[in-house]
This record gives sequence, structure tokens and C-alpha cells, in this order.
Amino acid sequence: MSFQKLDALGRKLEALEHALAILGADEATHMAVGGGEKRAEAMANLAGMYHAQSTAPEIRDWLEAAKAEGLSEDQRLALGEFERVYVNATCLPTEFVERRTAATMRSEQLWRELRPTGDWDAFLPALEGVVALVREEAQLRADALGLAPYDALMEQYDPGNRTAELDKVFADLKAFLTDFVPQALGVQEKRLADRPLKPLTGPYPIEKQRELGLAAMRAAGFDFTHGSLAVSHHPFCGGVPTDVRMTTRYRTDEFLSSLMGVLHETGHALYEQGLPKDWSHWPLGKARGMGIHESQSLFVEMQVARSPEFWQFALPLVHLHLGEDAIPGWEVEDVLAKVNFVERGYIRVDADEVTYPLHVILRYELEQDLVSGKLEVSQIPEAWDAKMTQYLGISTINDPKDGPMQDVHWPAGIFGYFPSYTLGAMIAAQQWAALEKDIPDARGQIAKGDFAAVNDWRAQNIWLQASRWSTPDLIRRATGEPLNAGYFKAHLKRRYG
Amino acid sequence: MSFQKLDALGRKLEALEHALAILGADEATHMAVGGGEKRAEAMANLAGMYHAQSTAPEIRDWLEAAKAEGLSEDQRLALGEFERVYVNATCLPTEFVERRTAATMRSEQLWRELRPTGDWDAFLPALEGVVALVREEAQLRADALGLAPYDALMEQYDPGNRTAELDKVFADLKAFLTDFVPQALGVQEKRLADRPLKPLTGPYPIEKQRELGLAAMRAAGFDFTHGSLAVSHHPFCGGVPTDVRMTTRYRTDEFLSSLMGVLHETGHALYEQGLPKDWSHWPLGKARGMGIHESQSLFVEMQVARSPEFWQFALPLVHLHLGEDAIPGWEVEDVLAKVNFVERGYIRVDADEVTYPLHVILRYELEQDLVSGKLEVSQIPEAWDAKMTQYLGISTINDPKDGPMQDVHWPAGIFGYFPSYTLGAMIAAQQWAALEKDIPDARGQIAKGDFAAVNDWRAQNIWLQASRWSTPDLIRRATGEPLNAGYFKAHLKRRYG
Repeated sequence: MSFQKLDALGRKLEALEHALAILGADEATHMAVGGGEKRAEAMANLAGMYHAQSTAPEIRDWLEAAKAEGLSEDQRLALGEFERVYVNATCLPTEFVERRTAATMRSEQLWRELRPTGDWDAFLPALEGVVALVREEAQLRADALGLAPYDALMEQYDPGNRTAELDKVFADLKAFLTDFVPQALGVQEKRLADRPLKPLTGPYPIEKQRELGLAAMRAAGFDFTHGSLAVSHHPFCGGVPTDVRMTTRYRTDEFLSSLMGVLHETGHALYEQGLPKDWSHWPLGKARGMGIHESQSLFVEMQVARSPEFWQFALPLVHLHLGEDAIPGWEVEDVLAKVNFVERGYIRVDADEVTYPLHVILRYELEQDLVSGKLEVSQIPEAWDAKMTQYLGISTINDPKDGPMQDVHWPAGIFGYFPSYTLGAMIAAQQWAALEKDIPDARGQIAKGDFAAVNDWRAQNIWLQASRWSTPDLIRRATGEPLNAGYFKAHLKRRYG
Repeated sequence: MSFQKLDALGRKLEALEHALAILGADEATHMAVGGGEKRAEAMANLAGMYHAQSTAPEIRDWLEAAKAEGLSEDQRLALGEFERVYVNATCLPTEFVERRTAATMRSEQLWRELRPTGDWDAFLPALEGVVALVREEAQLRADALGLAPYDALMEQYDPGNRTAELDKVFADLKAFLTDFVPQALGVQEKRLADRPLKPLTGPYPIEKQRELGLAAMRAAGFDFTHGSLAVSHHPFCGGVPTDVRMTTRYRTDEFLSSLMGVLHETGHALYEQGLPKDWSHWPLGKARGMGIHESQSLFVEMQVARSPEFWQFALPLVHLHLGEDAIPGWEVEDVLAKVNFVERGYIRVDADEVTYPLHVILRYELEQDLVSGKLEVSQIPEAWDAKMTQYLGISTINDPKDGPMQDVHWPAGIFGYFPSYTLGAMIAAQQWAALEKDIPDARGQIAKGDFAAVNDWRAQNIWLQASRWSTPDLIRRATGEPLNAGYFKAHLKRRYG
């Protein structure tokens, strides 16, 4: 039976994914410093095996033959995902993939060299080469998938995402935020005049911060029989669903950034740990995509862990683990003022949740124009500056390092990914609103550190759905309506208005 | 060029070996408890890919064609090893391998269940099945390799090992030890009457023991840019040459067992770290075999780290890391009396270096008779008891758990491996003797904690030779003569006589 062949292939690919995921996590946490070269070689070879096995020509025949087989409902959905993944993986000719890989590797290396000094002019030719290839790729994907070029790029990260819908939602959000950011800053100024920010006094020993982080993870529902927390330079959530490898980093003068980071990654981890077990080796059993994944991390980090209710529960936890005098005199309001501090800034990854979407929308708009050819690479600095000035009121024209050279995505040839970040923030808010309809006492439960009902709702509506539905369909099924920026706007007004 | 194909194959196999080695080490050190099932599935799949790729029929053609190609000396030797490995890996029919794998897995599981109660009668039928398969395997290997059946089994672990030579060397050693054990026990009794064993007072905090172990590893030459030390239930040396994963375990009432274990594994680690870098992906670039590997661990553990010279250096190190009053009043002689304590015992893995070879020779003799059919499985308990009584003066007839059921090897179908342990001990002694001829001050250098010249000698004569020579040829080239039990006997007389 052809479906059986796909099933067996899924198990082999899962084994290679497992190896790549654990080797990747191990590299960041436990590898000896001199082990990197051979590790890279081994991982490249395993990735090559993965590519060869997942794109073998006979799979096309299995997919066709399996359609005629008597399949269960799960198997029928699985077949659809097997096919979607296969088409996405095989729609680029090998010679193109090789050309693109070589160019983006060189470009990313060059970016790492040039970013510290912000030498845009030296970087320009490499990025022009990458954008030319991205345009070519978008067209190849568009032809294969019957989509518009930019939609075909997004399809890799969030199946079903279309600019037709996203443009409207982002336009709505942008109009709102352009007014709301100054308003939120004004409200914040008044609040801080009444109640100034309290300084963190530290030092906060790493071992105690670790215990606090573990306690927060445990409360949020992390399953320590299927995962662990380690330290790495860049925090991540990796590993496999049965053994999720989360990391954080610590500084001893501050504990909130590590704790909030841990809660963010816990959101990713819960999704992975909550995926259906039985078909973990089918594409159908994997997490849906980047936007949904980000919605799960932002649900925990933004919807829950920056709320007053969460801090009713978490403040005693801080005292328990860091000591009664860790933050002397702090009340919930003081923590919230700190973790929800709003600021206009240049750097996307440092942005708060109010200004963050404007960073993303700026990139989303520029990417579309770059892919369509409306914008050339040489015009990026001026276009970037114009939008930064318009959306956030700050200029980057003399600072490419903190302007268009700040992110790795474009140098690495990753286009169509940025919208997922803000998509995630909006989905998280929409999920919270839907959840609160079903569980009116959700905030009260969080205030007691009780995540059971909240997580059960998410398990049923998101995690166990895995890749059964496209991103827009999953949003609709989970929340009862299509993506709607209104919930995120309401969330911001409630917290910052 | 066909050699190029073999070279490329080597890189793919190295990637899979890398993944299996790191996943294996990770499993014992960092895996979440619930991750085992998927880890086992992933590793089985990767091992299956390794097997399929390393035994593909076209390799036979590449091997033949490469013989006619203009190869360098290294490539010519590499081709020989590629072929040796291929022949050993392909000489069993697939249906036989499947039958054997299923039977030994069941047998090993049953052994784990029955060993605690020593239920030999319940285990007998399973072991009979395994031995029948081992006889079949030995004959299949013998036919393919043109060797005698037991030699063909040993060939997997130590290429070139032949009973014709080993029988003589083991007979010599056995005759010596049967007399020497009582003599050494008598000497020990007198020594202890003059100077009783001092008790360890503890507790020895784990963190301090870890620092002591790391210091000992560093002194012995372990390269921490290419390896690390972690904790696991069963100590091992795993990982890959560029990132050796060593483990130990700690108890707080005692520190010598962990320290000696660390030094043993450091011996394995130095060999792996010292292998030639350029052809790590060829079979030629791997460690020679089990006997040579064990010789490297026993060189450090037995020849060096249980010597008075080493403890001149190590005793201050103990005080430095565990505290001045860690072992109050102990002198070098007190440590040596402890770590070199001789005792007749039932259990091979607990045996000291004087009695250990008798445990091995007993198994070597029984294995040969089991493979040849001279001995039936049902006769093992009596044969075992007779030899234990004759060699060590202790009876196991009423205690199968601590008799023939103590080791995993036979339940797992591993025959021909036991001799490597004592082969290693003999080679280590012979290497030390050869090294001391070239470096007359070797003991003086060890007393200063200076391993540079000793390690350089071993690098040149053993580590960098990798798999260029058969085990007997490597012994001959490194030490100037064939395996000779005389050096091991002289070592024992010096230390225990």
C-alpha cells in the first residue's frame, strides 16, 4: 500500500529530524568548543540525507496511488499534508537551490562581518544578489503552487496566509498603532510620575534564578518528563516533542529578562509537548507553522505572563526563590510597569509589544515591494527611514546597523517570514478572548497559578489540531472567526490605554 | 573515480556515526526521562540507514575498481580497511541478521529479568537459542573470511587476533596467575599487618570531586577543547574524536572509585582525541579495535594511575581539591594499598588487575568450547564452577547470578569479545616497557605530573597509527615484538610480589 510507504518514509524522516534537533540543541548547550567543524559537517550531511529522502521522485507516485486507497479520515488529511510538504520541497530545481544556498551563505557571513560597523555600501551588492534570487524563487514557487509570488513565499511558514487578508488586517493595525503609540507613551508618563520605576537591586544568583524559572515553567504546565532547561547564548526552544530542549541565559544584576524569556519559550514548548503523539512522524502531526507557534509563545509571555493576574501568583514565587528582600517594596504594579515598559526604539528584537508590530509591518511592506520589483535594494535605506519616521517618529537614515542591517532574515534570504511574528501576537490575543468566553474565570485561575483549564482549552483547540488545518482555518476553528486585529487592539487598550 | 565514491560514502557514514554517538551520550546524560522511546526509535532508524548505506551492493564494485586506480600509500591502506569492514559487515545474510537480532534482543531482555534472582533454568532455553545462532554465525563468518570459526568472531573486535597465538599467551598467563594470586594475597596480608588500610572519612562533596577529576584529566592530557566530563549511571567514554563525551558517577562517602574511573575513561578519550584528523571519515582513521582501546585505558588506569610515581603527583592534587583534611595522615603507600587491593571474588567487573585475567581466561576457554560444540549450554554451570575452583579457589555452583549469569555478553550474543579485556592489560604493560626504553625517565616525569613525553610516544606509536595495521602488527610495530605475557607478569610481580 502506498500510504504505508509514506508512513515508513515519515518514520525515517522523523529519525533524521530527531538527530538534527538534538544535535542542534547539544551544539548550543554542551558541545566542546573544538567540536563545531565536524558537527557542522555531520549536520550538513544529515540534512542532505533528509533532503534526498524527502524529495525522492517515487514519492510523487506514492502520493498519487495513495489517493485511490481506502484511507481513514486521519490518513486522508495526512496524505494532504504529505503532498503539500512534498510540493513545497520539490518546487525548486536542484541547481537553483544550490545557487541560492551558496549565495545566502556568503551573504549571511558578509553581513556578520559588516553589521558591527553598519557598512551598508559594502553589503549592498551581496543583498542585491540575494534579492534577485528571492524574486526568482518567489516566481518558481508561485508557478508550482498557483499563488502570487509573495504568498508563495509565506506559504512555507504559514500555509494559507495570503496578502489579500493580511494587508487589510495589518493596515487596520498600523492605523491604530500610529495613534496609539503616542497615547500609550503619554499614559505611561503620567503613571510613572505618580509611581516611578523601582530599580532592581540584585545580585540575583544564577542558581536561584534557575529555580525560579523552573518553578514558573512547572506552573505554566511544562512537562519535565519530556523536556529540560539549559543555558545557551541565544535562548531557544528546540529538541523534539518527547524531549523539548529549552534554554535561557542569565545576568546577575537582573532576573526579569531571563524569567520572561523562559515563559516565552515555555509557550513554544507547551505546543510541542502537546502535539498528538500517534502521528508524530507524519507532517500532519507537526506544529502548524511559524505564526501559530509564535502565538503559543506570546500567549504565555504576553497574554498571561505580563498580566496583573499572573503577577499576583508570580510575585510570591519570586520571593520564595530569590529571597524576601530580592525586590524590596515591589508590588504587582511595579513589576508590570517594568515588564510592560513602552519605548520607541530602532531594534525590532528589543521592542515592546505595542511598538513591535510597527517594526514588522514596515518589513512586510518593504519585502513585498522588494519581491515585486517596486523597490530596489539600493532604495532600502531611504524607504526604511521614511517608514520609521512615519510609524515610530524616529530616523535611521544615518544608522544602517540599527536600521535595515539589524536582522539576519534578509541577508539569509528569508522573505515572507516577518509577518508571522505579528500574526502570532494577534492570534494570541484572539485566542485569549475566545478562551475567556469558554472559561469566564480564566484570569482568576491564572492569579492562583492554575493553568489546567487554560492549557486544556489550548490543547483541544490548538495543540492537538497539529497540522490538520491551514493557518487561517485553524484560527477560525479555534476562535470562531477569521483573524481579527480587534482583539489585539483591545488587549493593548486594556493594558496600555 | 571509485576511491572518491568510497571517500564520499565515508563522509556520510561518519555523519550517521556522529549522530548515533552524540545521541547515545546525550541519552545517558541529558535526555528527559520520557524521551527514551522516541530516542530508541530514532537511533534504530539511523542505525538502519547506516547499515543500508554501508552494505550497499555497489560498494563491492567500487572496491574492485579502486584497486586499479593510482592511489597514494594512505589511500591504498584505506582501501584495504574499507574492504575489510565491508566484508565483515556483509558476510551474514540479511535473514540471518534479522533472526539473530530478534533472538538476542529477547534473550537480553529475559536475562535482565532473571539475573536478579539467578534463575538459570528459566534462562537456559534462551541462551541455548543464542548459542545455536552464534555457532551458525561463526561458521558463516569463517566461510567468508577463510578463518576458523572462533577466530572469525574475534576478527570483529580485534582484527588479526588468532587463538593460535592467544592460546599460548593465555596459557602462560594462567599458569603464572594460578600460583601468583595466593602469593600476592600473602604479601598483601603481611603488608596490611604492618600498615592497616586507612578508612576514608568523607563526605566528599560532588562538586569538589568533579574539580579533582577534571584536574586529573587535564594533567593526563585530556583536551577540553575537544571533550567534556558529565555524570551518568554507567561511566563511559563516548562521543566523537572532536568532542569526546566522558562520564563518571560520584558517591559522597568515597572518591577513589570515581577518580580511578575518570582516569580509565581518560585513557580511552586520549586515544580518540589522538586519532589522525585528516581521514577521520575512513575506516582507516578509526581506533584499531577493542583490545588496543582497552590497552589505552588500562595504560592510564593501571600502568600509570595505580603507580607510586603517579600518587606522588596526585596526593597533593587530592588535598588541593578535596581539602587538607580529606584523607588525614594518608601517604602514597596508603592510597596504593587501597587502589591496588587484591581479592578473590566472583564478579569480573569488580576484580582487581591480578585476578581479572583469570575471569577472562575462564570465559575465553568456555566460549571456544561453546562455539565448537565441545560444551553445551546446559553444562556451563558445572564447567564454570570447575574453572572458578581451579583458577581462583572459589565455587559458584549454587550462585548462577554471580556465576555464568553475571555478564551481558553471552545473553546478547557477543562471543569473541572477552579476550580483548586481558589482551588490553597485557598490551598496556608491554607498551609501558617499550616506552620506558625510549624514555628512561618516564616514571620521574609522571611523578611530576608531566605526561607530555609519555603521551607523545603513545601518539606516535599508537594513536596516529589508527587502523593502519592489524592488532598483532600494531603491537609488534609499537613495542618491537609480538604480544608477550612476560611484561604483564613482570608488572604484577613488581607491584604485588
